[in-house]
Amino acid sequence: MLSKSQISFIKSLHQKKYRKEHGLFLVEGIKSITEFIKSSYQIHSVFYNSEQAHLLPELSANINLFEVNNVELGKISTLQTPQGFLAVINIPKNKKLEHNELRNQFTLVLDGVQDPGNMGTIIRTADWFGFKKIICSDDCVEVFNPKTVQATMGSLARVEIYTGDLAAILSKSNIPVFGALLNGESIYNVDWGNEGFVILGNEGKGITPAVIEKVNKPVTIPRVGEAESLNVAVSAAIFCAELVRVKN
Amino acid sequence: MLSKSQISFIKSLHQKKYRKEHGLFLVEGIKSITEFIKSSYQIHSVFYNSEQAHLLPELSANINLFEVNNVELGKISTLQTPQGFLAVINIPKNKKLEHNELRNQFTLVLDGVQDPGNMGTIIRTADWFGFKKIICSDDCVEVFNPKTVQATMGSLARVEIYTGDLAAILSKSNIPVFGALLNGESIYNVDWGNEGFVILGNEGKGITPAVIEKVNKPVTIPRVGEAESLNVAVSAAIFCAELVRVKN
Repeated sequence: MLSKSQISFIKSLHQKKYRKEHGLFLVEGIKSITEFIKSSYQIHSVFYNSEQAHLLPELSANINLFEVNNVELGKISTLQTPQGFLAVINIPKNKKLEHNELRNQFTLVLDGVQDPGNMGTIIRTADWFGFKKIICSDDCVEVFNPKTVQATMGSLARVEIYTGDLAAILSKSNIPVFGALLNGESIYNVDWGNEGFVILGNEGKGITPAVIEKVNKPVTIPRVGEAESLNVAVSAAIFCAELVRVKN
Repeated sequence: MLSKSQISFIKSLHQKKYRKEHGLFLVEGIKSITEFIKSSYQIHSVFYNSEQAHLLPELSANINLFEVNNVELGKISTLQTPQGFLAVINIPKNKKLEHNELRNQFTLVLDGVQDPGNMGTIIRTADWFGFKKIICSDDCVEVFNPKTVQATMGSLARVEIYTGDLAAILSKSNIPVFGALLNGESIYNVDWGNEGFVILGNEGKGITPAVIEKVNKPVTIPRVGEAESLNVAVSAAIFCAELVRVKN
């Protein structure tokens, strides 16, 4: 049985302001929660529907568990159809970006991605293709937004997210900077070398001028048909898939 | 000034049942509406905010235009932030699929894609890469769903959508059938030939068994990292991009 204050506390974490204030975010669904339990994230508490208790992983022995009923779960869930499990998890401190850890690999850089679903899909896709780190501009949608977390399908537990001023970060590095731009070289012909940043811009406005200045190699996904643009998560996926193709 | 009955009529088109009953669907935003005006779709009527009347294309001379205010537009719009223009457009009759029109090209086939955003993104991506036709199973999300239409960004006006029983359609053809499956050949090594169906399955369940039986060539997007799966719109995009790369 949850108290009113527990319910209102968890509901407050639906909002960015309170996630930031408390340093906590929500993950729903046993599959995703299990990924976080296995990771280095610290689990604050897990609320579970008694009917599904048998699904709790053994790993959860040291975790604060609270059995709740469907009505209570409906009150604390961010989903229209709650999935039986809701975890409250600590937001990790923004790790310092060590530039030498970015050598000999490709790192996705997101400049102002706004849609939580796009952000989550990019994290999931990066995880599929083995990209370990994503750097987000300060004005990207928060990765701990419940819609983003949901769209990552657990991959947020594995991909490291850094946030900062992109122009400043890129200035400090001599790793090549590839940018998804119109009128660049065809993605199919690029000489990628063995390391780089790959920048993708905002859904409507693309990459900001200050960041475009840092791009050494504009890259374009060739258009054969007539659509005006590609969705940013789709573009990111095509970059990841092409890099994996070329590097293997 | 809209009458109550006009408002309730347009609002009814937010629902699939009434879209089907009236054979009409909604498109919002002047960019997308312009694409439909230029296409073979028949425009039933366009509602526009007087402040933005200057954006109406010249093409709209023969169209039923209704000037509305912001409050009225808010009532008929499917969006939280209405975009100044809402068109009511005729749903075209489901065209008969002519198999000989599918020769010497690749056609996307969607088996049970459920999410309107994914469906819209796939249509937009297909349009970017020059894929002219998409075949959807009967249980796919309706392409005239407002969220789907919105996500196509106008590309629905250009890509032809067919709906039907996939196993029956594939049985009638001797065009090779490629399917996005686990444990298939790597997408980077496939011998595509010069024509084919490319099947993508449902978000959770993949391709249905009856359709898998028709697949001649299972194809897999290699996983380098750890995510359990890829989003279906992301997979579709990687197939489209790879086909364009190989064929150009």
